[in-house]
Amino acid sequence: MTSKDFTPYYAVIFTSVQSDYDQGYAQTAQQMVDLAARQPGYLGFETVSEGKQGISVSYWKDLDSIKSWKKVADHLTAQKSGREKWYKSYTTRIARVEREYSFEKLES
Amino acid sequence: MTSKDFTPYYAVIFTSVQSDYDQGYAQTAQQMVDLAARQPGYLGFETVSEGKQGISVSYWKDLDSIKSWKKVADHLTAQKSGREKWYKSYTTRIARVEREYSFEKLES
Repeated sequence: MTSKDFTPYYAVIFTSVQSDYDQGYAQTAQQMVDLAARQPGYLGFETVSEGKQGISVSYWKDLDSIKSWKKVADHLTAQKSGREKWYKSYTTRIARVEREYSFEKLES
Repeated sequence: MTSKDFTPYYAVIFTSVQSDYDQGYAQTAQQMVDLAARQPGYLGFETVSEGKQGISVSYWKDLDSIKSWKKVADHLTAQKSGREKWYKSYTTRIARVEREYSFEKLES
């Protein structure tokens, strides 16, 4: 995301706990990040992980963009593998971003 | 958050990059987590950090709960310290959670 204010737009908040099996995970995760960035309506992506816990937030122009991305074939395959192998649990939240404000420290 | 579906409710998505100065940060961060949990309308909190980067999401019943929490005196002091000392940059997004779905692996 740039600092430009696109509100209202949508965020997909994905909070997860990984399983002990991580073979193929990192590669597929990176492929999905790259693939998402090429979808119509994609605005940005942020992810942070700490041990098995992760929070990823992707940003989208509207709900239709999210619905389309959810159904992309390679993404469907990755979601299935996620449930079968890589995740112990996760929650996906679809949220409408109504306001945002940013702070950036000026270099002194 | 429990697995109970409270939608619609609100999420505050806080993405941050810490500065090189972290004295007092961890203690204040924990105090704010504890204080937030005692506010009216609080539903839950999740945070993950990786090096200097962090994503924290707090969940609230409605916008009024978020507005009230923003103005709690000790929280205002912490926000000021955050800008002066602990954060290089951050973005706060206020978002209305419209849908959520969870996955949890059954133990085999």
